[in-house]
Amino acid sequence: MLITLTTDFGYFDPFVGIIKGVIAGINPQAQVIDISHGVPPQDIMGAALILQQSIRYFPPATIHVVVVDPGVGSERYPVLIESDENYFIGPDNGVMSLALEKSKPSCIIHLSEPVYHLQPTSRTFHGRDIFAPVAAHLSLGANPSDFGPVIDNFVKISWPNAKKTNNAIVGQIIYIDHFGNLCTTVREGDLAGLPEKSIQICLGDLTIHGLADTYAAVKQENFAALVNSWGLLEIAYKNGSAQLKTSAKIGDKVQIRTA
Amino acid sequence: MLITLTTDFGYFDPFVGIIKGVIAGINPQAQVIDISHGVPPQDIMGAALILQQSIRYFPPATIHVVVVDPGVGSERYPVLIESDENYFIGPDNGVMSLALEKSKPSCIIHLSEPVYHLQPTSRTFHGRDIFAPVAAHLSLGANPSDFGPVIDNFVKISWPNAKKTNNAIVGQIIYIDHFGNLCTTVREGDLAGLPEKSIQICLGDLTIHGLADTYAAVKQENFAALVNSWGLLEIAYKNGSAQLKTSAKIGDKVQIRTA
Amino acid sequence: MLITLTTDFGYFDPFVGIIKGVIAGINPQAQVIDISHGVPPQDIMGAALILQQSIRYFPPATIHVVVVDPGVGSERYPVLIESDENYFIGPDNGVMSLALEKSKPSCIIHLSEPVYHLQPTSRTFHGRDIFAPVAAHLSLGANPSDFGPVIDNFVKISWPNAKKTNNAIVGQIIYIDHFGNLCTTVREGDLAGLPEKSIQICLGDLTIHGLADTYAAVKQENFAALVNSWGLLEIAYKNGSAQLKTSAKIGDKVQIRTA
Repeated sequence: MLITLTTDFGYFDPFVGIIKGVIAGINPQAQVIDISHGVPPQDIMGAALILQQSIRYFPPATIHVVVVDPGVGSERYPVLIESDENYFIGPDNGVMSLALEKSKPSCIIHLSEPVYHLQPTSRTFHGRDIFAPVAAHLSLGANPSDFGPVIDNFVKISWPNAKKTNNAIVGQIIYIDHFGNLCTTVREGDLAGLPEKSIQICLGDLTIHGLADTYAAVKQENFAALVNSWGLLEIAYKNGSAQLKTSAKIGDKVQIRTA
Repeated sequence: MLITLTTDFGYFDPFVGIIKGVIAGINPQAQVIDISHGVPPQDIMGAALILQQSIRYFPPATIHVVVVDPGVGSERYPVLIESDENYFIGPDNGVMSLALEKSKPSCIIHLSEPVYHLQPTSRTFHGRDIFAPVAAHLSLGANPSDFGPVIDNFVKISWPNAKKTNNAIVGQIIYIDHFGNLCTTVREGDLAGLPEKSIQICLGDLTIHGLADTYAAVKQENFAALVNSWGLLEIAYKNGSAQLKTSAKIGDKVQIRTA
Repeated sequence: MLITLTTDFGYFDPFVGIIKGVIAGINPQAQVIDISHGVPPQDIMGAALILQQSIRYFPPATIHVVVVDPGVGSERYPVLIESDENYFIGPDNGVMSLALEKSKPSCIIHLSEPVYHLQPTSRTFHGRDIFAPVAAHLSLGANPSDFGPVIDNFVKISWPNAKKTNNAIVGQIIYIDHFGNLCTTVREGDLAGLPEKSIQICLGDLTIHGLADTYAAVKQENFAALVNSWGLLEIAYKNGSAQLKTSAKIGDKVQIRTA
């Protein structure tokens, strides 16, 4: 059974390695794949988006562990959520909610059974002390209900849907990748029926005319707008970083005008 | 048998991948876990601390390979150290010594047997040419004594213990993590018996009043001191980086005052 | 069967994790090793060099997937190249050509058979939609010819050989590693017969006298030139970064003078 990890732990500390050690100590056969440890610190929306866009590429019954957890040690619950397709383990702070938009959870568990936690259990590192051992025991065949009582609900955050008016769509930048590509909240479906070649995409002072099909189709030293591999509108710069060229940041408004 | 890697190789070069290729070529079944490759270049104390804090979370008989090796190719020995619990492979420069503080080594081997090294053996990359193949052969069941002669001792570095005076404890910053949390040399035990709520933690101009229980308990835009998941006193900044806020660096003095 | 990944995706996005999810969904037994994801964005020569220097350390019949692909979605072919020793999968843009300098490809396949691609196949992420599933099916025993028709040739880039004159060798910086070491195009063989102790290595204003044997042999706060673990001439700075000290960049000229 496959376990994935998505955290804001970065790549410089031993925290992720320690989590893998805990898992290997409980289930030496568990296969662990890193989705990303580069979530900006405490960025719950960023992690939720990454998880939502990634899970469809993993086999069914994968156990997705998410540790973006600014409220660790507070009253927020550590939870396990089972859906038709997957398991999610992490803090109940909304980080799993975009991934669960399209699949009804069949079971939500409050991870309160201490026999499945490392002892002593710290108040600052539940990834190591609660989420990793629970994931490992689940991968060995434990039942979700072994880990604690069923609860009724979990925290949801909602996708900031692009707004449509008569002659414009207004979205925002939601994610900036390593290449400096600016991913927006505008979905491919939002653009349906619009004239691809004549729409204008505006970000601050920048206006891009029409959609490109691929990065390669864009002329050197030029901005382009295209639907990216997640089905979202993206602003890119040919062989460079649109982020560096525009100084854009997460939350900046992007307008699509049709006239 | 599990092999871990801790290096200062970073994440941009193929050096770690090459080490894993060498291991897979000798023992395709070996499971390799990265503890960290983000040790600051040539920082033997940082690597020693990471190793010390990580090994307890790995199963017994894990083979820990450490390559922070500014003296590669010089007269420093490449060694294998066996303890009651684990194996350590790396340069004899102190990098394993904090991890071995509490467990007497049962065997120290000078890795001088060339049949277990890649040929030709470079003078600049023993991680690839000596440590990786030795770890892989050990994971296949080779005896430590196959790799070279037993030696009597290994290089030790010592933990800079916090100093206690009548009304103060003086420690220093020993590690700064990816979140900018400032980890000090002051152990949880050093604080035993002190009034948690009324002590003062001082770093340069900054004074923090009392210990917090969790990151979440801290008010927005505030510094906090707490015992971290390694059992060490840490200075944090709520949803931000204490390192950026204070410009503190490794070695800076931290004082705990009780009056 | 072992699969390696070399990309310019960096370590902050979920793209590499998604590729591993696709592979695990097709062949759960596949072992995947990251060579590097730190190739500078769109740097085909850098990736080609990394691959060339890494493959000899992997077992025979390894499947090397390379995704440095500025032309994704354009007319460049996605290809599989089989050599005597290994398989290479990636874009036909030269990125595999240095690795194939010494082994004649036995078979070159245009990856045009859509049954082995994810559907729908994006025009912006062939790593996920074409290269990962093809690698996974190949690791399960599919025949190269299952993936599309044999083609005659593949794109080659050539190593910028150092130029020799009567009393000088002129090369350039081709790679800068995480330590700031400056790796040049000058091969160990280019230096054969030269007086190691009296040659001068010049980079801009900097002149280094003689070759060092190891990093450790260099005096504190000093530059050194040595043959690195790839067999290439390298300029290093003792316990520091030669790149930061010189501001050198890829392509800068390096001269070796013998008088």
